[in-house]
Amino acid sequence: MKLYTYFRSSAAFRLRIVLNLKGLDHELVPISLLNSEQLTESYKAMNPQGLVPMLEDEGQHLTQSLAICEYLEETHPEPALLPKPPIERARVRAIALVIACEIHPLNNLRVLKHLKNALQQDEDARNAWYRHWIAEGLGQVETLLSTNPWTGRFCHGDSPGLADAFLIPQVANAVRYQCPLDAYPTIRRINDECLALPAFAKAQPHLQPDAI
Amino acid sequence: MKLYTYFRSSAAFRLRIVLNLKGLDHELVPISLLNSEQLTESYKAMNPQGLVPMLEDEGQHLTQSLAICEYLEETHPEPALLPKPPIERARVRAIALVIACEIHPLNNLRVLKHLKNALQQDEDARNAWYRHWIAEGLGQVETLLSTNPWTGRFCHGDSPGLADAFLIPQVANAVRYQCPLDAYPTIRRINDECLALPAFAKAQPHLQPDAI
Repeated sequence: MKLYTYFRSSAAFRLRIVLNLKGLDHELVPISLLNSEQLTESYKAMNPQGLVPMLEDEGQHLTQSLAICEYLEETHPEPALLPKPPIERARVRAIALVIACEIHPLNNLRVLKHLKNALQQDEDARNAWYRHWIAEGLGQVETLLSTNPWTGRFCHGDSPGLADAFLIPQVANAVRYQCPLDAYPTIRRINDECLALPAFAKAQPHLQPDAI
Repeated sequence: MKLYTYFRSSAAFRLRIVLNLKGLDHELVPISLLNSEQLTESYKAMNPQGLVPMLEDEGQHLTQSLAICEYLEETHPEPALLPKPPIERARVRAIALVIACEIHPLNNLRVLKHLKNALQQDEDARNAWYRHWIAEGLGQVETLLSTNPWTGRFCHGDSPGLADAFLIPQVANAVRYQCPLDAYPTIRRINDECLALPAFAKAQPHLQPDAI
């Protein structure tokens, strides 16, 4: 298995966590977004979208981090990252999707570039935009976590799972952009729990071979 | 089963299609986003995020359209909206996620409001923003569909499924915002195939009881 990754990509960070949690042997193939390596012909031949992360498994190329997580859960069920009852699985996926659909897409590199180039927004305005969507989104996640009895040591119960693999990279982005986290005590607690585990700690951007 | 819906919400449109495809009896409960009914205390008591769609099933309230689709697939497996082999399931989910993560989040109402209020973008600029992300995203979906032998009458094979339930509402948004669709022949063909089926046709915004 090969994971095409970029140290700072938070979608790649999710998959580094999941591969570690499941204890799956894999090779990391760095793709430098800074040098636009994701847009080379050889990369786009494997992934026409020209995005990281991508997983190569048995000659197939898989894209979209959540689709890859579900694939790994189906092909390597243990340890499980989703609970068994459908209603609980739906809750875990909903937390992951708040992050994947309501925070991350608004703050990724191509959106920040478009704000700069097409909308002439300066750096302060772009940072304000970034922090606005982090605050909105993490506030929603905090409510989902703090008001639900299924929340345990981790986002769902007492073992780490899919929602944690999405949350921790998003918190790392918030820290990098100096977003205040005081309003999210449950998120901070779960972040600390997760980063105490090697599967999460080793997946952090600054510890990747391509970190600069 | 109750679906809390708004006629123009494309995430609700996805679920109307899925409920129809699976032939599940359900009641539609309109929540007017125009009148901010999603922000009332009684609604937020059920759904702290204050968003539509929401599914009520056996006293539980489920959120996030993709999580709800997976729940319905697990609790009502037939007719299946996902193929059986994990690699094919990953492909179908990836197509749905390109729409759910890379087009829709950039164009929903709260983002358009933020562009207007916080970034002082006028209507022309907001429409240009909308069309830009549609063009980027549908271009990617067209490539995924037109270059893959698994594409059939529908996004994946010859029966309608999860990817179609995400694609058709996005095409409806594109049409509503007068985005040219000439560059997406595969998408247009699949859109026509789907709208010929009652499950899709009856789910369209203008046919909903709350349409205005």
